[in-house]
Amino acid sequence: MQHTTIDGNEAAARIAHRVSEVVAIYPITPASPMGELADAWSQQGRPNLWGVVPEVIEMQSEGGAAGAVHGALQAGALATTFTASQGLLLMLPNLYKIAGELTAGVIHVAARSVATHALSIFGDHSDVMAVRPTGMAMLASSSVQEAQDLALVAHAATLRTRVPFVHFFDGFRTSHEVARIALVDDTTIRAMIDDRAVADHRLRGLNPNRPVLRGTAQNPDVFFQAREAANPYHAAVSGIVGEEFDRFAELTGRRYDYTGAPDAERVMVLMGSGAGAATEAVNKAVAAGEKVGLVTVRLYRPFDTAAFDAALPSTVRHVAVLDRTKEPGSVGEPLYADVVAALVERRGADAPHVVGGRYGLSSKEFTPAMALTVLDELAADAPRNHFTVGIVDDVSGTSLRVDETRWTEPDDVTRAVFFGLGSDGTVGANKNSVKIIGEHSGRWAQGYFVYDSKKSGSMTVSHLRFGPEPITSTYLIREADFVACHHDRFLERVEMLHLARPGATFLLSTRHGPEKIWDELPAEVQQQLIDKEIDFWVVDGAAIARDAGLGDRVNTVLQTCFFELTDVIPTADAVTAIKDAVSKTYAKRGRAVLERNFAAVDAAVAGLHRVEVPSRVSATHSMAPPVPADAPDFVQRVTATILAGHGDRLPVSALPVDGTFPTATSQWEKRSIATEIPIWDPDICIDCGRCALVCPHAAIRMKAFPASEAPDPAVLPSKDWTADKTGATRMTIQVAPDDCTGCGVC
Amino acid sequence: MQHTTIDGNEAAARIAHRVSEVVAIYPITPASPMGELADAWSQQGRPNLWGVVPEVIEMQSEGGAAGAVHGALQAGALATTFTASQGLLLMLPNLYKIAGELTAGVIHVAARSVATHALSIFGDHSDVMAVRPTGMAMLASSSVQEAQDLALVAHAATLRTRVPFVHFFDGFRTSHEVARIALVDDTTIRAMIDDRAVADHRLRGLNPNRPVLRGTAQNPDVFFQAREAANPYHAAVSGIVGEEFDRFAELTGRRYDYTGAPDAERVMVLMGSGAGAATEAVNKAVAAGEKVGLVTVRLYRPFDTAAFDAALPSTVRHVAVLDRTKEPGSVGEPLYADVVAALVERRGADAPHVVGGRYGLSSKEFTPAMALTVLDELAADAPRNHFTVGIVDDVSGTSLRVDETRWTEPDDVTRAVFFGLGSDGTVGANKNSVKIIGEHSGRWAQGYFVYDSKKSGSMTVSHLRFGPEPITSTYLIREADFVACHHDRFLERVEMLHLARPGATFLLSTRHGPEKIWDELPAEVQQQLIDKEIDFWVVDGAAIARDAGLGDRVNTVLQTCFFELTDVIPTADAVTAIKDAVSKTYAKRGRAVLERNFAAVDAAVAGLHRVEVPSRVSATHSMAPPVPADAPDFVQRVTATILAGHGDRLPVSALPVDGTFPTATSQWEKRSIATEIPIWDPDICIDCGRCALVCPHAAIRMKAFPASEAPDPAVLPSKDWTADKTGATRMTIQVAPDDCTGCGVC
Repeated sequence: MQHTTIDGNEAAARIAHRVSEVVAIYPITPASPMGELADAWSQQGRPNLWGVVPEVIEMQSEGGAAGAVHGALQAGALATTFTASQGLLLMLPNLYKIAGELTAGVIHVAARSVATHALSIFGDHSDVMAVRPTGMAMLASSSVQEAQDLALVAHAATLRTRVPFVHFFDGFRTSHEVARIALVDDTTIRAMIDDRAVADHRLRGLNPNRPVLRGTAQNPDVFFQAREAANPYHAAVSGIVGEEFDRFAELTGRRYDYTGAPDAERVMVLMGSGAGAATEAVNKAVAAGEKVGLVTVRLYRPFDTAAFDAALPSTVRHVAVLDRTKEPGSVGEPLYADVVAALVERRGADAPHVVGGRYGLSSKEFTPAMALTVLDELAADAPRNHFTVGIVDDVSGTSLRVDETRWTEPDDVTRAVFFGLGSDGTVGANKNSVKIIGEHSGRWAQGYFVYDSKKSGSMTVSHLRFGPEPITSTYLIREADFVACHHDRFLERVEMLHLARPGATFLLSTRHGPEKIWDELPAEVQQQLIDKEIDFWVVDGAAIARDAGLGDRVNTVLQTCFFELTDVIPTADAVTAIKDAVSKTYAKRGRAVLERNFAAVDAAVAGLHRVEVPSRVSATHSMAPPVPADAPDFVQRVTATILAGHGDRLPVSALPVDGTFPTATSQWEKRSIATEIPIWDPDICIDCGRCALVCPHAAIRMKAFPASEAPDPAVLPSKDWTADKTGATRMTIQVAPDDCTGCGVC
Repeated sequence: MQHTTIDGNEAAARIAHRVSEVVAIYPITPASPMGELADAWSQQGRPNLWGVVPEVIEMQSEGGAAGAVHGALQAGALATTFTASQGLLLMLPNLYKIAGELTAGVIHVAARSVATHALSIFGDHSDVMAVRPTGMAMLASSSVQEAQDLALVAHAATLRTRVPFVHFFDGFRTSHEVARIALVDDTTIRAMIDDRAVADHRLRGLNPNRPVLRGTAQNPDVFFQAREAANPYHAAVSGIVGEEFDRFAELTGRRYDYTGAPDAERVMVLMGSGAGAATEAVNKAVAAGEKVGLVTVRLYRPFDTAAFDAALPSTVRHVAVLDRTKEPGSVGEPLYADVVAALVERRGADAPHVVGGRYGLSSKEFTPAMALTVLDELAADAPRNHFTVGIVDDVSGTSLRVDETRWTEPDDVTRAVFFGLGSDGTVGANKNSVKIIGEHSGRWAQGYFVYDSKKSGSMTVSHLRFGPEPITSTYLIREADFVACHHDRFLERVEMLHLARPGATFLLSTRHGPEKIWDELPAEVQQQLIDKEIDFWVVDGAAIARDAGLGDRVNTVLQTCFFELTDVIPTADAVTAIKDAVSKTYAKRGRAVLERNFAAVDAAVAGLHRVEVPSRVSATHSMAPPVPADAPDFVQRVTATILAGHGDRLPVSALPVDGTFPTATSQWEKRSIATEIPIWDPDICIDCGRCALVCPHAAIRMKAFPASEAPDPAVLPSKDWTADKTGATRMTIQVAPDDCTGCGVC
């Protein structure tokens, strides 16, 4: 079987493009890559299963995309689209119609928070839950592998059932996770797509040669009856989807079932990527003899109460349903309410006791420790209902208390965490490393990337795992074998070695050599290096990149060092693979660029130096506080915690109830990310003022003043200024080093 | 207490306009009148409670209206809007934000079907149910009185809770029902609106003098906590709404509670206008000693499980939850699922058995007989679940069998049904009659109007009730004391005397006098007149109107006859009131128009003639079949039944599963509604062809042909034609009398 290393968006889009003729798109994070890939593939002439290149059309909004899909489907074409969040909301009017007209089609959703008190580009189910009333079938994938597999099941099933599908997976956690997956090949796709069903779909298309009337207006006399006439189609969906899953299992060997003890007494129910963490927790608990289980809901609509009943062991006494969404004012969140009703209907008075909880809103971490905490809660006689897990709710008291240290990641998985600067190439290189390992070593690989919403110039954190079994850890790394800091300034303000396991390797890119670096480190970092007995290495990535003519692009240098310092695959093999990747990525930029990159890669290992870690802390300075001591209270309590990367630790009471924040707080954020900053030279200054004008970060300021007010030249140099109407005769230009990003525009 | 006779839209809009500063509107049936009224009132300079004329702005779509409301609220203004159906869907993205930001505001919704297999302008809850996930509070009114009262409760409660409200009532059934209601006066409004809460709302508005930041982007670190921070606000809503209901009851004496036996064992739960019919059914059953009850849900979101538990007698064993919506693929419809979860949470193993049913989609009738049938079903040991009521479902077998004859309307209510021609003024006159009776007699009055979606030129049916108690009958009249047919051609194709009770009065407007009319009637009509011993009257309304110079406008003539033939109020008083209304309505058209109307009114009673009904049927013809015998099968089975006004009797199997209909079926519909049709006179024809060109109904056709093919002049006259290239030398013009509408354009 062929394997590949791609993210969830690509996994789903690959199938969607392969079985579509019309792809109407409109970009929205985190679904945009699906549309972009489909567009690129069609531009490259990549055909669908029937040898035709799908037509990709970008519309004016998601409303237009849904309308175009509706129209294409009604013309008998195979059509799809990709969206999320508000984009999905704009499609709702069309989805009611597409479903009401029993029009076979699939839309793929990288599920994302709907904006409420604040916008968020991150993942949860608040958008897809808004699809519930439409009559669309809904199929949830919980991993990159599933994003591919279930995409195909959805396309196969919609053609047979005539009920259109929303196929969704968690934004970022699945859509942007890079993972090694078993590839579905054309033979499988062909075997899954029923040609007869395709022909039937075409024949249902509107065609002047066999005209029919659709989209009528109906009155109270017949609308209700017509609405009930489609019942058999919806009733058939679950059975047909089951058949398609069976067929898929025959073709690929992959089957999606209940996890846990067959005689479980406590069971969790959820859908989406949380299933990864929950599966690990349940497997561990079962291995320890606990009678627990997990039902991962995949076909959410139509909700088959009989199938759910059958999946849930008859021994279950307590059920916890976890919803990745929040509907204020509801009796309970949607999946919870569904499960309560389903079990009452199927088991009556024998129904197990069901409680519901919220988790993971907007990509909030959901970990095995949290899953174990939920299972523990189910052991109570009267488990709490309507709880939250993953936060500290000191306002309504909903939160379960979680001890993250109860979970230890498996020994056979290599874990690496990289702290990079947005746009320094770290994320790209790490994606590439995951692919190299996934495709060259036969090891299963996973990469997940945490971005700051400031994008370019801010911090990126890459979380990479490699192991002998498929990686199901859908949560961030807490015990890394390898930690890299690609930008030494981060050490002054961002805690990072708390993620290193004892004895881990730490790689720091710094201009300070192995002898001098120790004295540059803040006390906290020295302490952790000592306490955890960390194997500490430095490399001057910036110098190597500069020397090779690459400017600030340290990525390939540090990528090579990563392979050298870990034994995931032999460095020589890695270097070959890195150079291959460089060739592919930069070929169009010419031979010179390639040579520069090759030189940087070749020079990397020689630049690596181990640092002797002394036995005691000798630092004279501590890490910088995130904001100055004179910042206002809210900035001290909330903004500073967020800036320090500890927003997860903020309790509910710290956050405004309605999304209202104080203004003018960015002044307290001193990012200090510039590796080089401009220095004003009064002797050559021609007073043009352009430097202050063009500085995009307002870090360069120009002031003119009377000579009588000129400061001490030793403190602040100034120069003569052609007297103006204000009476100023001296001028100075100042640079704020902590606000400067070193962007080089000046 | 002051009373007035208005429809639900006006009842709600009056409050909304009175307590708003900004009203952003976009028209959509059936909510449009709310926006139109608000616009008209502001144009007339009608101020709000604080003496300011609200600014009414029509936006480009409902998305814009919601955005304008969001913006106005965020600026600290009191703002509202009105919408329905797809319009409400377009507002969803803003509603999530308005709710997430805890922004006090109310939108009023005349609930209407969302288009699925077909569009429908009629009422059900499929649109408001799409609001469930947004965090908006939802308050449901079930009558015109409530549409006013609960509008005020919503505006009062939102200011105190900061949670925005959707206040909704059933499209058409409530929005367009004209009813006598107790008017909420300014003293009450002022007492309900908390000035301090208004001031707080203003202070929360964005203002450059006290800047704050809203509408931020949040990341996974804090979004979840912030989302939970608003919990106390949502948790407080139910209590505050309860306080506002109490305060309202103190001020007005109107309280909204549980209906039925305190020791009920069987209880129905529903919301919206169905409560009217259900209340009548429950009261009758309780009077007969049955232990039944009704919980009418008003505050649907936040759903207060404790309050629901308290409202439901502890003796209840079986509960039927009726939903006026359908969500294919759900475990059950929304209110059902809420009630199941609420009762499991509150009563655990002691929870009563709950079943759910669908009713009333797209204004499908919901009658006391249906409500009684549901209560009967609850008497079974294992009542059916997921049933439908109001249709015959011969596909999935979901429907309960209803015997409508088990329900008899009360004796003290006068019921009148009028069959008019769209745009003949019948509906307007009847609305006016309701107002006259409601405002002049002290009797409670109700008018409901059934329109054909063909609008102008098709049939309208007015259902009027008058009685000593407030009218709660939210269903069509089946046993009328008075039936009027304003257009004698209808008798040939529309069954109408099935709605007459035995001994009822029947008024027919016809050119045939009292001696001749009998022989003109089809056998079916004669039979019913005899069988039901009907008091049969004729008037030549058209002639009286014409003689008075009113053309086709027969409305005031027939309105006067109605008052003469019934004893609701003395005819003399009615005539005065009719003339008053005419004066108000037509004053701007000048004295001549008024005089013509007065003349018609004065001549009406003299034109009334009683018809002696013979003891046996003597007709030589029967009613015309709706379509010719050679029409295709589908037209015979389905279209013809709809045309005959019996679409309600079509079973589910008769309707297409996906809204697909055959084309070219309008050719089989022969409406025959013209009172006068053009006749071609070959002698004066100048061959211009304009008559055929301008006929909007394609009922006039012009043909040229060779003399050799000329038909028999006795059958089809023709005239000479200037020879053209086709060799034609004769021409004829034909009029299709059954397709002609008598519109007079030719």
